[in-house]
Amino acid sequence: MSPLAHGAAARHPIPAAGPFEVIATDAVTRARRGRLSTAHGIVNTPMFMPVATQGTVKGVLPTQLTELGAQIILSNAYHLALRPGTALIRELGGLHRFMGWHGPILTDSGGYQVFSLAALRKVSDAGVEFRSHVDGAPMFLTPEDVVRLQVDLGVDIIMVLDECVGANATRADAERAARRTLDWARRSQQVAVTLGQLMFGIVQGATYRDLRIRQAAELVALDFPGYAVGGLSVGEDRTMTMELAADTVAALPAERPRYLMGVGFPEDLIRFVGMGYDLFDCVLPTRNARNGMLFTSNGRLNIRLARHQRDEQPADPECRCYTCRTFSRAYLRHLATTNEMLGAQLATLHNLHFYLQLMRDMQAAIENGSFAAWSAARLERLTEGEPA
Amino acid sequence: MSPLAHGAAARHPIPAAGPFEVIATDAVTRARRGRLSTAHGIVNTPMFMPVATQGTVKGVLPTQLTELGAQIILSNAYHLALRPGTALIRELGGLHRFMGWHGPILTDSGGYQVFSLAALRKVSDAGVEFRSHVDGAPMFLTPEDVVRLQVDLGVDIIMVLDECVGANATRADAERAARRTLDWARRSQQVAVTLGQLMFGIVQGATYRDLRIRQAAELVALDFPGYAVGGLSVGEDRTMTMELAADTVAALPAERPRYLMGVGFPEDLIRFVGMGYDLFDCVLPTRNARNGMLFTSNGRLNIRLARHQRDEQPADPECRCYTCRTFSRAYLRHLATTNEMLGAQLATLHNLHFYLQLMRDMQAAIENGSFAAWSAARLERLTEGEPA
Repeated sequence: MSPLAHGAAARHPIPAAGPFEVIATDAVTRARRGRLSTAHGIVNTPMFMPVATQGTVKGVLPTQLTELGAQIILSNAYHLALRPGTALIRELGGLHRFMGWHGPILTDSGGYQVFSLAALRKVSDAGVEFRSHVDGAPMFLTPEDVVRLQVDLGVDIIMVLDECVGANATRADAERAARRTLDWARRSQQVAVTLGQLMFGIVQGATYRDLRIRQAAELVALDFPGYAVGGLSVGEDRTMTMELAADTVAALPAERPRYLMGVGFPEDLIRFVGMGYDLFDCVLPTRNARNGMLFTSNGRLNIRLARHQRDEQPADPECRCYTCRTFSRAYLRHLATTNEMLGAQLATLHNLHFYLQLMRDMQAAIENGSFAAWSAARLERLTEGEPA
Repeated sequence: MSPLAHGAAARHPIPAAGPFEVIATDAVTRARRGRLSTAHGIVNTPMFMPVATQGTVKGVLPTQLTELGAQIILSNAYHLALRPGTALIRELGGLHRFMGWHGPILTDSGGYQVFSLAALRKVSDAGVEFRSHVDGAPMFLTPEDVVRLQVDLGVDIIMVLDECVGANATRADAERAARRTLDWARRSQQVAVTLGQLMFGIVQGATYRDLRIRQAAELVALDFPGYAVGGLSVGEDRTMTMELAADTVAALPAERPRYLMGVGFPEDLIRFVGMGYDLFDCVLPTRNARNGMLFTSNGRLNIRLARHQRDEQPADPECRCYTCRTFSRAYLRHLATTNEMLGAQLATLHNLHFYLQLMRDMQAAIENGSFAAWSAARLERLTEGEPA
């Protein structure tokens, strides 16, 4: 089956004006309400992307994702290339069909995974050489290869390969990685993608503000349909994260979607939306759910604590998700303490609902001009006081 | 909250004629089509009960159980007594409310678990003394205690405490255990249960045919609303299992439901229904699903095998379950080999659908008088040939 036969391009034509439209802008903050058109449907922004690293949002059926109101999910080209292989997925009709999710999919290139998971990695201008974290097999990927993997997958948004350095990178290392990431972005654009697939560039630059701003400008000159900001929340202190995130987004064009990679807590998302970011992904709601941590209107809840043993309340009394409509904290605690998989499932459904409802609330607040007041009130509740 | 406040009794009054009605009997075999009325609804028999040992069918939401057509589930008084405690569940409104399942629930007494899981067990006529398999705490339970645990849980069908001995038990040991089980059954009947709760007696007797038949007769003299046959498929050879199962069920009254505990494979269920059994439970469809084993119309499928790597077919091309309507074997294999929990979930949904559809097919075959021919054809397909 050819990539075109995935049917991606035909179903939802990209508007002539381009795939992204800003439909409301907050008067006080930089928050904006947008609409991103992809080959598999429209994404209302700001939006959070549930993480489906290996072609599944852990513990969640595709129908449940739809019920939760997920509009786009994130998978990972590196992981899928190792298992089960992108050629296999292409042969079987593409990633949407393979995983039974027919909405938009963005794949991360795997740059971050190569740097954090793969053993014996060696980066050169040509590409990345590493051993698979699964079976130790030696692999070499050029930036062009990484785009082709995502063409094979038939995803809606392709991320270019980037070099991610840690928060303690020297100026020289950060410069070199940024220059290489830019060069790779340029090379990625030369690879033919399927009609309808969008490719996003990635700003790196470690903790060096001027480097990030210069990197953003050079990337923008390459004219990508969207831009991501990577390499934040990788060990630097929080104030620095917030400053770098704000300064970098300001260097990106207002008319393009801006994606902040790999963050964060609910309160972080509110702040980043206030800076003008549109898209987010993070493993927190799903991974923490599996560890018994639930996000609530009043902050975080560790469902394993003995205090919840006889608690008849739902995890979040204000929440309308299936978990909160149906089960007590006492039951969720029982499932967590007996290591029952249903505990992970119900907590995941709740946390994803919490994140997606937060995004919908932000969209509404931006639309009706109340985002500044709404976010101040919401941040106060999320970050102060004990969970009810 | 009092047990009565669970509301069990009010919702579905038990018919004056008694809780069980045989509505069709096969002319060739001993199979029958029945209707069991419980305080939480009607169970059409023959029926399979998905196993929810710790108050959850592993990996399945209560709404999914309903979608699958489950009519009754089985939980375990012993496990729930250890964690989270039956008093706690009673306090929170009973097991139905605790686990969000509002259909009928049968609880096993835990006799089998005490004998197979608990350390340092010591059985006397008074009851069972053992150490919790969870934390080693010493516990002592009389048969009366075990009924009270199930009264606290507010379940629809209470199983009496029984003493289960292995297939290699001596005649003397089997006699002693059978006599004790009968004595315990008598004592259990003296405990007050909530209006609407049904109590089933259990036939033991190890591998001794005459002992089982005598045990059945003595139990029947106690006039339980339903009878279970326990202690089969515990190590004896298959021919013996089939003979003992057939001889024992023939000693139980036709007008009462007959429950064969803890078995079996799909082909077994067809044979046992043909003998006249009405109710079944088994961990096979759920446990094997978690190990990548799927039941199909043509036999069993090990989804981890390399042969399924590129296979676009559903697990069972004849199956209409969500898993088979949505996913390829290739995807299920990917989930199994990457140990993704969605793999266990999707296989569990499929296997439970398979078992429950099999029961519905048997009900229909009995109703329309075709059970003998149907079961012969079905057994042939299930037990011969390779999976497609």
